[in-house]
Amino acid sequence: MGASLKDVAQLAGVSVKTVSNVVNNYPHVTPGMRERVQRAIDELGYRPNLTARHLRKGRTGIIALAVPELGNPYFAELAGAVIDAAARHDYTVLMDHTAGQREKEVLVTQGFRAHVIDGLILSPIELETSDLLGRRDDAPLVLLGEREYDAPYDQIAIDNVAAARTAVRHLTGLGRRRIAFIGARREMARRPAHLRLRGWREELSEAGLPCGEDLVAATDGYGRWDGAAAMNALLDRGERPDAIFAYNDLMALGAMRALVERGLRVPQDVSVVGFDDVEEGRFSTIALTTVSPDKQAIARLAVERVVGRLTGAPQMSPERIQPGYTLIARESTSPPAA
Amino acid sequence: MGASLKDVAQLAGVSVKTVSNVVNNYPHVTPGMRERVQRAIDELGYRPNLTARHLRKGRTGIIALAVPELGNPYFAELAGAVIDAAARHDYTVLMDHTAGQREKEVLVTQGFRAHVIDGLILSPIELETSDLLGRRDDAPLVLLGEREYDAPYDQIAIDNVAAARTAVRHLTGLGRRRIAFIGARREMARRPAHLRLRGWREELSEAGLPCGEDLVAATDGYGRWDGAAAMNALLDRGERPDAIFAYNDLMALGAMRALVERGLRVPQDVSVVGFDDVEEGRFSTIALTTVSPDKQAIARLAVERVVGRLTGAPQMSPERIQPGYTLIARESTSPPAA
Repeated sequence: MGASLKDVAQLAGVSVKTVSNVVNNYPHVTPGMRERVQRAIDELGYRPNLTARHLRKGRTGIIALAVPELGNPYFAELAGAVIDAAARHDYTVLMDHTAGQREKEVLVTQGFRAHVIDGLILSPIELETSDLLGRRDDAPLVLLGEREYDAPYDQIAIDNVAAARTAVRHLTGLGRRRIAFIGARREMARRPAHLRLRGWREELSEAGLPCGEDLVAATDGYGRWDGAAAMNALLDRGERPDAIFAYNDLMALGAMRALVERGLRVPQDVSVVGFDDVEEGRFSTIALTTVSPDKQAIARLAVERVVGRLTGAPQMSPERIQPGYTLIARESTSPPAA
Repeated sequence: MGASLKDVAQLAGVSVKTVSNVVNNYPHVTPGMRERVQRAIDELGYRPNLTARHLRKGRTGIIALAVPELGNPYFAELAGAVIDAAARHDYTVLMDHTAGQREKEVLVTQGFRAHVIDGLILSPIELETSDLLGRRDDAPLVLLGEREYDAPYDQIAIDNVAAARTAVRHLTGLGRRRIAFIGARREMARRPAHLRLRGWREELSEAGLPCGEDLVAATDGYGRWDGAAAMNALLDRGERPDAIFAYNDLMALGAMRALVERGLRVPQDVSVVGFDDVEEGRFSTIALTTVSPDKQAIARLAVERVVGRLTGAPQMSPERIQPGYTLIARESTSPPAA
């Protein structure tokens, strides 16, 4: 075990209170005393214990971040940003993944780790508003992601309808006319809550372009395999789409792979737009056009809301906060340079 | 807050001890009593608190996993596997990333979160053996990754020299003669501890093929950008390599992107092999040949060693454990089907 405050006090021949004053940078410690204590600190390799500070305030210093899956680089990149943002507030992050299962998401919101965590950031997939209204745990909860809830919790998400419309408008602006939508779990495809699908439909409908069910390929999950399978299903259905708007980058990348395997060219035969701006899309052999949510802002805002409620303003009213996004056009929607 | 054991006992009209007996599935509880308690449990939504159980044993139920970066999908996939393996032992995982900085890695091993975690799984980059020998914290520590240490801790890693030789042999078997190595931080490229580089050199040397410094492209980091920059540097150096063995998949994918941008064909002009088998390599437009470490086994073994020391055998001697690996040949080392 490391040295304690007491060990430092003993070695320096001063009181524990004096060591504490030095460690906490309190004033009225003489420079000589400060140096004497610092020498003992260095010699013993003592490090002030942030955890202990949190514990004195009845906190653990841990925020949980629950995402559907770490294997999706969007969530991995987001997790990295949350860990960094939390560190700036002396918080550490306990990671959990829910596999997007409602049961697991409910468990997380109900505080099954209430003794370990001070607050929770959750990116739900199947959680329902009723699950949230039945919540008994009082640890601060911040919700991320595409779903919207009628519940008194902070929700941080970009404007998904507007972002989807921007992506589709990019494709119609290129002259594309049969723009298919890939993604969303099968059982959710008809829900109004599916904001990116709604944006796709609204934009096409206003442009007078087809947006029927034959152009929607639902999937079982959110991965590369799902995107490839959905692309193949669309190609097997009959009239070929000339563009794809995918729910996320992973599905877009899977769809591109399927197109190439079927001998079709991206972007000449089929343009492809994803969503998330994961780094791999920048480096794929055909670089992927995508909607880029401001992940740094999402992470920072989520941590600030949790920490704000813990340290200062537990009564502040829940807010919906919309960070920004940008469309990043790359090779998958324009011919590569000659 | 959720219901307590006491709430359940009150509602059921029984003693706390009886509720505890039911929750813990102890025998000598009559079926009638069991049902009565279960009804109260259901009504109150009570969940037995695993954390509390751990706390009674002086533990927190948390294992920390510290990796260089979650943005690298290898570590994200590994983290998912560790979280699942830990859950099977009723442990949760606290994630941390070190950015591969020695200072951060030392801090992690010295137990700056000793009050919060029961054990630690660390994948170090710059940590030195001397750092480990100076460790004072007594929480179980398991080391992952390519570096080897002369220190009394469990170390779990595939045979990196043999795996690198397998990858290079795959390339020589295809008739490749100028096989370059991409990766490893600049300041580490000359270290004998760099096992994958050593495997590359040994295999080429035995085959009588060039393995001089002009075929080694060191990098500042381990990402896609680094791989692309290293590939461009190799191409600018003069005689073109006809194959690339990259330290990891991300760098291999970056190198492929750079090759395509320079008008070279993969695999016809340059074959490429990576390391890690991250899912994105399977779906890249040119699917990536790679060394696939058994990530599930690595995660399972790491958790088992930590939990084993916590629950049963703290005195078991430290071991080096080598999980398996396989070479997965894909399009980047063979012409695509016509």
